[in-house]
Amino acid sequence: MIMRMSRLFVRTLREDPADAEVPSHRLLVRAGYIRRAAPGIYTWLPLGLKVLRKIEDIIREEMDAIGAQELSFPALLPREPYEATNRWTEYGDGIFRLQDRKGADYLLGPTHEEMFTLVVKDLYSSYKDLPLSIYQIQTKYRDEARPRAGLLRGREFIMKDSYSFDVDDAGLDVSYNKHRDAYIRIFDRLGFEYAIVEAMSGAMGGSKSEEFLAKASVGEDTYVRCSLCDYAANVEAVHVPPIAPVPYDDVPAAHAEQTPDTPTIETLVDHLNERFARDDRPWTAADTLKNVLFTVRHPDGTTEALAVGLPGDREVDDKRLEAHLGEGVVFAPFGDEDFAAQPTLAKGYIGPGALGEKKPAGVRYLVDPRVVEGTRWVTGADVAGSHVIDLVAGRDFSADGTIEVAEVRDGDPCPRGDGGVLETARGIEMGHIFQLGRKYAEALDLKVLDENGKLVTVTMGSYGIGPSRAVAAIAEGTHDELGLSWPREVAPADVHLVAAGKEEAIFAAAERIAHELDKKGVTVLYDDRAGKVSPGVKFKDAELIGVPTIVVVGKGLAEGTIEVKDRATGTREDVPADHLVDRVVRIVKA
Amino acid sequence: MIMRMSRLFVRTLREDPADAEVPSHRLLVRAGYIRRAAPGIYTWLPLGLKVLRKIEDIIREEMDAIGAQELSFPALLPREPYEATNRWTEYGDGIFRLQDRKGADYLLGPTHEEMFTLVVKDLYSSYKDLPLSIYQIQTKYRDEARPRAGLLRGREFIMKDSYSFDVDDAGLDVSYNKHRDAYIRIFDRLGFEYAIVEAMSGAMGGSKSEEFLAKASVGEDTYVRCSLCDYAANVEAVHVPPIAPVPYDDVPAAHAEQTPDTPTIETLVDHLNERFARDDRPWTAADTLKNVLFTVRHPDGTTEALAVGLPGDREVDDKRLEAHLGEGVVFAPFGDEDFAAQPTLAKGYIGPGALGEKKPAGVRYLVDPRVVEGTRWVTGADVAGSHVIDLVAGRDFSADGTIEVAEVRDGDPCPRGDGGVLETARGIEMGHIFQLGRKYAEALDLKVLDENGKLVTVTMGSYGIGPSRAVAAIAEGTHDELGLSWPREVAPADVHLVAAGKEEAIFAAAERIAHELDKKGVTVLYDDRAGKVSPGVKFKDAELIGVPTIVVVGKGLAEGTIEVKDRATGTREDVPADHLVDRVVRIVKA
Repeated sequence: MIMRMSRLFVRTLREDPADAEVPSHRLLVRAGYIRRAAPGIYTWLPLGLKVLRKIEDIIREEMDAIGAQELSFPALLPREPYEATNRWTEYGDGIFRLQDRKGADYLLGPTHEEMFTLVVKDLYSSYKDLPLSIYQIQTKYRDEARPRAGLLRGREFIMKDSYSFDVDDAGLDVSYNKHRDAYIRIFDRLGFEYAIVEAMSGAMGGSKSEEFLAKASVGEDTYVRCSLCDYAANVEAVHVPPIAPVPYDDVPAAHAEQTPDTPTIETLVDHLNERFARDDRPWTAADTLKNVLFTVRHPDGTTEALAVGLPGDREVDDKRLEAHLGEGVVFAPFGDEDFAAQPTLAKGYIGPGALGEKKPAGVRYLVDPRVVEGTRWVTGADVAGSHVIDLVAGRDFSADGTIEVAEVRDGDPCPRGDGGVLETARGIEMGHIFQLGRKYAEALDLKVLDENGKLVTVTMGSYGIGPSRAVAAIAEGTHDELGLSWPREVAPADVHLVAAGKEEAIFAAAERIAHELDKKGVTVLYDDRAGKVSPGVKFKDAELIGVPTIVVVGKGLAEGTIEVKDRATGTREDVPADHLVDRVVRIVKA
Repeated sequence: MIMRMSRLFVRTLREDPADAEVPSHRLLVRAGYIRRAAPGIYTWLPLGLKVLRKIEDIIREEMDAIGAQELSFPALLPREPYEATNRWTEYGDGIFRLQDRKGADYLLGPTHEEMFTLVVKDLYSSYKDLPLSIYQIQTKYRDEARPRAGLLRGREFIMKDSYSFDVDDAGLDVSYNKHRDAYIRIFDRLGFEYAIVEAMSGAMGGSKSEEFLAKASVGEDTYVRCSLCDYAANVEAVHVPPIAPVPYDDVPAAHAEQTPDTPTIETLVDHLNERFARDDRPWTAADTLKNVLFTVRHPDGTTEALAVGLPGDREVDDKRLEAHLGEGVVFAPFGDEDFAAQPTLAKGYIGPGALGEKKPAGVRYLVDPRVVEGTRWVTGADVAGSHVIDLVAGRDFSADGTIEVAEVRDGDPCPRGDGGVLETARGIEMGHIFQLGRKYAEALDLKVLDENGKLVTVTMGSYGIGPSRAVAAIAEGTHDELGLSWPREVAPADVHLVAAGKEEAIFAAAERIAHELDKKGVTVLYDDRAGKVSPGVKFKDAELIGVPTIVVVGKGLAEGTIEVKDRATGTREDVPADHLVDRVVRIVKA
């Protein structure tokens, strides 16, 4: 195929668009790949659509290769199935809702678990029908509070979502691993750097959960990797390595002390070192136990007070807390009114009394896993200006359970306990595979007859990739200061051919090369613009558009050479005109 | 590719679905191509999606072949552009509207004229950029009052819509004809019978307008064709052939007569023949002039009374009236309150006085083109029980204009005046091409600089095809009593291979044939189901699913023959096993 710049529906821009926050967004607009139609909603211009389609085709090929079958659900969905799983309520403001002319409720599908589950229930009834993997590549909608970063977080976007259906957990493991392998092939082909990280699975009820993250400084996701082993995890999913109980036979009894004017950890530590100095080592924030209170509202409308106890040197990580509380749960730190409503909780001095024996009804107390039996803490004494010292977990207080929501820091030990330490990095969530389990099958009553004629609930896996986000993530990972620079498999063309000059001979040679390359199956974006468009403008456009191989028919032609440039590395070579087509074909098919 | 029935996500049904009104809908559900998700909203199962994609690919190829460039707009669109063209209001209940979390108005795009116009305005600025044709294949939404007939009239459906942009009318003609030729190639390839008919263009402001209709008895569109020439037109677009004025010098003066109890045309004609018998011929309904009143509400909220005068032997055709009044205009016949509000209009006896000199303000009077100057009529005398005879158009009364909304009947003369008569037929609107002109370019200010540096408004053409409707229309046109029967180019597979029997040898032979055909590039739907599935069930499924060539490996295998059956004609041939693959390849590639 030959695309001619003189006719291609594109207009490159020299200036960055005002609303573009990240390089991929700036460059995709400037190079004429996309245009914004509304906040978080984009039009795909011809070049952008070509890249998107190539990504979709790669995904489709790899899905088909593992025997997954493509179907397509509507985007406009009735309320009822989402009511059955409670997600109509859980999604809150996060989805687009509408009514038809008869007043019936609809939503624009943000994900299609319900539809996948119901279609299998409709068609299948026996264990013999399983395993089954089905998928779609389809437009999805989320009413993001703050759509940002162009295609990276849109309100209308494309998703490939697949689901596996198995009769038992062993089958689910097989389906999960097939998808995992397919995802590795897909991400390898997409040509950008990625990490596979462990992700939260608790809230969704399944057991295994991994994310594929594109490494990118603009990414919204923080993940950690071990300095020694191959452990990597989304920050939400990081666990504290198991800690053994500590002997506490020789710890003196807990004793309350006056600690006036110590409402913060910092003032408390200073006070401890001044008035209660230890011989062996100074007090630090890590010796203190901080109790942080939240008001938590569940999707069913009920609220509770949640107290999180954690070492004083760490903050609660809101994203981790959000992930642990699960979808549709809203939380906020205790405010003055909340404290006023719980007079036994002494703000700044909350301690084991108020969270132990005297705990008010409706308060749940969960502690960080570092608070294991036998550990010694300084914490509030439940009255202003007083703290308890030598408070031993398990001896002097206990909690309702543990929660892993303390911030994760560079240098924290690897959960695998191999001596490595964690380092954080940022990424863009590009794919998510997880064992969904029986949550939706139970809610929507998807059962099949097993070998013994008994009805069993089907277990599901869920596997998603965002092709539209992938366009931006690849651009993010591969661009340079001159413009986009596509990996070959997703580039909108194989070769960007530039006729650089005004001479008839240059255009004639370029035209001939375009046709010869086309005949060999090479896709050519041919800059055939005549008249006022200077070679300089054409070179700039070629760098901006980012086709991986740039062929320049210019001054060298008189001496019988044509320049071939690698967009990514900038390497140039002068190729004899006679060998040009062969040389380019070899580069393209390499 | 080999698809195995044992693994294919499909379930055929022996019973018709309760909600299916037309054969295509019944069969597409029974054969496992689609499932209903909500009224007018469907899920595409794997077989259905394959047919849909093949149709889309044919359309894409032919669009690309005329140099049209593909892009893709969002389906979720902001209100503002539709406000600028007044369509936000005009669409009334016909579109889905919604608000985002910030309360901003959006719609689900029913068509994208505004978006196409604006993107060209954004990117282009000179006559040198034109002509341009751009298109998309995309999901569209209409909140139909009564979604019906499965995919034939859905609320979520797929459309290919393209638009051409030219600086002048001559350019538009060229673009229009290119699209027309491409449409002919597309419809020829889709493999069903179609008619190209003249369509209404007036309301949209353009000049040329044609529809591509699939011939189908279940079609919602009525069209006419001439018994002699190649004239064909949508009923909305049919014109009365020009009629010359009639001399009326010897017509006596109009005279009012008592005609008690003649509120209907039938009673009036009886009365005339009884009391005012003519020598030359009896009175017929065609001698009477019927004045029918409507209340018309325009999109801007204003209302008017419209009186339509037409020969008494014809009714007003609501669809023709709707088409003439234009999009967003709502009308209803005069009710008792309307008559009460206009006391000068004597219900059942409305005549030239009330519609002429004494016409109330706010009433518009339009007549059928058969009411030419000099024609003689019997009509109401504006008082109950009285009619005027020998009323001559142009002498005794005149109207505000003409309107072509009288019903079209079999036997009406061809508008080309060649002596042929019209016959009506029914069809499904599959494509519509029309010269849109400057309506949207003017509303959205799309101008380019012409050769002289002067700003000129661009003129547009609009060209649409519905691929999802095409799936149903093809099924409608090609099915038989046994099931679906796809034309080869859109079939979900080339060959339906049936292993008919229980013997190991049959399955081994079928398996080998499947692989050999696959190697030759033939797509095989292989019914490899073992166990309880009888040959009879497999044959029924093959007929129902409708792949054009059915290969049966069965009893004949022992004698070295395999049956090849043509699904459409039912022709069978026994082919020697050794020649089977070659024979099938020849059939498939024919």
